Amino acid sequence: KLVLETSKNTPQGAKIVSHILLLRAGFIKQVAGGIYTLGAPAQRMALKIEAIIRSEMNRIEGQEVKFPVAMPRELWEASGRYATIGAEMARFKDRSGHDMLLGMTHEEAAVHFAMNTVSSYQKLPFMIYQIQTKFRDEARPRGGLIRVREFTMKDAYSFHLSQDDLEEHYNLQHEAYLRIFNKIGLKNVISVKSDTGMMGGSAAHEFMLLTPDGEDEIVICPKCGYRANMEVAQCAPQDSGASTASAAEVFTGQCKTIEEVAAFLGIPSGRTIKAVAFAAKGAPTPIVVFLRGDLEVNEAKLRKSVKKDIVPLDASGHPSLVCGNIGPIGLTGDAIAVFDQSIKGAEGMTIGGNKPEYHIINVNVGRDFAPAEFADVAKARRGDPCGQCAAPLTIENGIEVGNIFQLGSKYTRAMGMSVANERGEAVHPLMGCYGIGVGRAIAAIVQDSHDERGMILPAAIAPWSVHICPIRTDDPSVHTASLRLYDALTAAGIDTLIDDRNTSAGIKFADADLMGMPVRVVISPKGLAAGEAEITLRRTRATMLVKQENVVEAIRELLSGDC
Amino acid sequence: KLVLETSKNTPQGAKIVSHILLLRAGFIKQVAGGIYTLGAPAQRMALKIEAIIRSEMNRIEGQEVKFPVAMPRELWEASGRYATIGAEMARFKDRSGHDMLLGMTHEEAAVHFAMNTVSSYQKLPFMIYQIQTKFRDEARPRGGLIRVREFTMKDAYSFHLSQDDLEEHYNLQHEAYLRIFNKIGLKNVISVKSDTGMMGGSAAHEFMLLTPDGEDEIVICPKCGYRANMEVAQCAPQDSGASTASAAEVFTGQCKTIEEVAAFLGIPSGRTIKAVAFAAKGAPTPIVVFLRGDLEVNEAKLRKSVKKDIVPLDASGHPSLVCGNIGPIGLTGDAIAVFDQSIKGAEGMTIGGNKPEYHIINVNVGRDFAPAEFADVAKARRGDPCGQCAAPLTIENGIEVGNIFQLGSKYTRAMGMSVANERGEAVHPLMGCYGIGVGRAIAAIVQDSHDERGMILPAAIAPWSVHICPIRTDDPSVHTASLRLYDALTAAGIDTLIDDRNTSAGIKFADADLMGMPVRVVISPKGLAAGEAEITLRRTRATMLVKQENVVEAIRELLSGDC
Repeated sequence: KLVLETSKNTPQGAKIVSHILLLRAGFIKQVAGGIYTLGAPAQRMALKIEAIIRSEMNRIEGQEVKFPVAMPRELWEASGRYATIGAEMARFKDRSGHDMLLGMTHEEAAVHFAMNTVSSYQKLPFMIYQIQTKFRDEARPRGGLIRVREFTMKDAYSFHLSQDDLEEHYNLQHEAYLRIFNKIGLKNVISVKSDTGMMGGSAAHEFMLLTPDGEDEIVICPKCGYRANMEVAQCAPQDSGASTASAAEVFTGQCKTIEEVAAFLGIPSGRTIKAVAFAAKGAPTPIVVFLRGDLEVNEAKLRKSVKKDIVPLDASGHPSLVCGNIGPIGLTGDAIAVFDQSIKGAEGMTIGGNKPEYHIINVNVGRDFAPAEFADVAKARRGDPCGQCAAPLTIENGIEVGNIFQLGSKYTRAMGMSVANERGEAVHPLMGCYGIGVGRAIAAIVQDSHDERGMILPAAIAPWSVHICPIRTDDPSVHTASLRLYDALTAAGIDTLIDDRNTSAGIKFADADLMGMPVRVVISPKGLAAGEAEITLRRTRATMLVKQENVVEAIRELLSGDC
Repeated sequence: KLVLETSKNTPQGAKIVSHILLLRAGFIKQVAGGIYTLGAPAQRMALKIEAIIRSEMNRIEGQEVKFPVAMPRELWEASGRYATIGAEMARFKDRSGHDMLLGMTHEEAAVHFAMNTVSSYQKLPFMIYQIQTKFRDEARPRGGLIRVREFTMKDAYSFHLSQDDLEEHYNLQHEAYLRIFNKIGLKNVISVKSDTGMMGGSAAHEFMLLTPDGEDEIVICPKCGYRANMEVAQCAPQDSGASTASAAEVFTGQCKTIEEVAAFLGIPSGRTIKAVAFAAKGAPTPIVVFLRGDLEVNEAKLRKSVKKDIVPLDASGHPSLVCGNIGPIGLTGDAIAVFDQSIKGAEGMTIGGNKPEYHIINVNVGRDFAPAEFADVAKARRGDPCGQCAAPLTIENGIEVGNIFQLGSKYTRAMGMSVANERGEAVHPLMGCYGIGVGRAIAAIVQDSHDERGMILPAAIAPWSVHICPIRTDDPSVHTASLRLYDALTAAGIDTLIDDRNTSAGIKFADADLMGMPVRVVISPKGLAAGEAEITLRRTRATMLVKQENVVEAIRELLSGDC
């Protein structure tokens, strides 16, 4: 009766393995871009994952609540985010013309709930959380359940009197997250430092499943263990050697890009200083980043450094910039210069001449121009020295499966929430927030655990632990024995699926492999004649023949292991 | 640490008892009109109610899935409801300008999911359900969790090959619903026939909690058990006695209303035939209902009878109607007449004369004018004869806590879903749908079970089973004994709340009574000295002194009863 249709074919448009397998197994069905119906197997996985999350949140004294999906504009104006968040936020007018929005996160709702409800320090710290539907209007939903527009999320919010207390709880959450991922079968999850993005706040970590299909890049130092999301990964300054030659203008003609200039002059691009132009959203002033020619600007780091939401600027259209020849000496107009630390102390560099067809060679930073300060705004690269220990960095791909933030007093201050501290003074509590997407966890599990036949689901979160395949359902003894086993397993509290379709063994085995339940049991006329059932583990493909009367016990034992 | 603030005062604007108590106990907090955050106690109740619903749905072979909250316009255009549903449906444009909506019910999503997934009769019947957030933009949200805009709902959808099969499952749902209400502690729920409303379809039942605060009216025959929502309750035709007098015009001057005319002529209003004017929405043609003067038109029944969405018409502005003197003889213009069965065979009646200042007396229906057919469009009244057994009807108020519908093939036909039947012919499956609101169930429980002190929550769904009140928390022996009891109860799997605030016994008792946990335990210096704890049942207020070492066992026994 299971409402599900499996397919042998790779669905159109599906590129990554979790997307392909979840669609092929009929676990999910797309309703619109980034919006899915979860079929019974996926919803069973979701419920098991939610139960694990819930138990870990309760273990660190979380109080489960439920905030609304639809919220009034005023609530988000109080925090300032109604204006600062753009098209990602779905907005609508209710029947009386009032502006409403769909929650993509619930800091405002959490403060609204705690405000006036908690008035004294004695209630702090506390942590509230919910498991609820969210809507985030992603520009490019993709990857099945990896990047969707509507999703179920556990989001938690903690409130504290001091930074120490916030950090203490933050660490408890960090540990709880690692336990959650371990319990749901994601063994390859690491935590990395990350950007605070639209959340604001002082510190954040992402939990990353390392997988080649991941769209995030993680910078890892194999020596000291430094780990960070590409968006925040530090670049260590590097020595560039000394030079005593004097700076001099050289004709470089129509060479515009650093690659063209370096080739024309016969030098490596690492011996140049390139200029990349940006502007704050909606403001005309150019922001020009100067960094070593072989590096790229990390926009997330730049955004954080200049504390503005920046976008790339087309310098060719700007009157005060000489596109292709922009340099740090004699930069005209109102441009704001940002100097990356990759050029700190660099000598013998080639820079733009700030006039058409000319560059300047033999430039020493400090001698020929001396920036007041340097920023860290370049992208880390594989093989670059680690900022902590100088060992060569590696870069791996990952899928973000959770994140935690130290928000500080950003929301409580903006919304005017205060409590009386021990001395009776009104203070704005410090907050942390902590999220895990349930659907993305499902996708990550499939991404992490599959083979060419299909999914390999960990017993803790598999929709069913056992998949019974009766061979020749038209044989009454097979039919009876299969149903009896189904009833016995169910009575023993073991979730069991029975494939009672009148189809071939081949189709049943292929579907069982595709759907990925940890234990498969085959009941066949031949086996019954010998008084046996065949048990196969999905992960190892180990097969054993077990006496009919011992099947339930054998399965119970197998499931208690890590199968 | 519980994030909750109780209050002694009736909150502004709260009129019905469940609204008042849920607010006073801090279980819910309003975010916008009809939109609430559920605090930890309410969410704990919701989870327990959801678990009971889930187990009953699984028991009748429901498959839990999850449909999206946000759906694309196309899905609802396929069923025709994008156009027919009005302001109740929240609509928004996504970032690419695509029309989206928030689901208020999920027939379209269910058909979308089952379509192409189920292709053969062998899969039918099946039932899928979800527990998910819905948004319905009510014009007048009120009553706290009774009539909200955003709510969590269990909605189930069944698919069938035949009407018999649909009715068989419909009956299973009916039984499951009664078990659910019984298990969550709503003993006073009855099922009544109801209108199918915007769902369409052939039959429907509502489950009603009988309570004087309810906004629905239910017609009940205490003799034969006939029960129906006022919107569909039948009115039996009544004998009016015989008359042989001839019809004659009489001057009635400025008498306009039936009451004025009856008083002027010295007759009971039940001896008149009154005219009530309506029009189909957006159409100019008047629809005039003629019914006995002492009855009222039931708009829901009229709507169903004329198969149009009708609204009241101000006859005074209409050129072809003589307002105050409209009658069935010589009705001019394009008006459509609807004759209620209350006037069938009536004799000696007074009717409007269709000219100013005149009525006609001694009119016999059948002799003086003879309608081709009669409709049942009048409101049932307390004391009217039952249509089934003629015993006097009673009318009670109720809160709708669930509903079930036989939808037929309305959605599968409109959306083009078909399956091959046993003879290989493509047929549109018949559907049923079945809903329960979780938040409304919480409110109904409070409505049904409270006293002047506060809520009385049934153990099956109370946030916590036990509420420990330590008296004098500054006494270390009280503190230690209370925590020890808390740990022992928790270890025994009994949900326990401990009020460790440093406040007076009076405040603790008042809050315990307000919050309504079934069992209260008081640990006091005096009790400890005697080696005893005081246990009080919230419902009966029965109090007992129990030896410290027997408290867990005593509570376990109390909770296993119906406390």
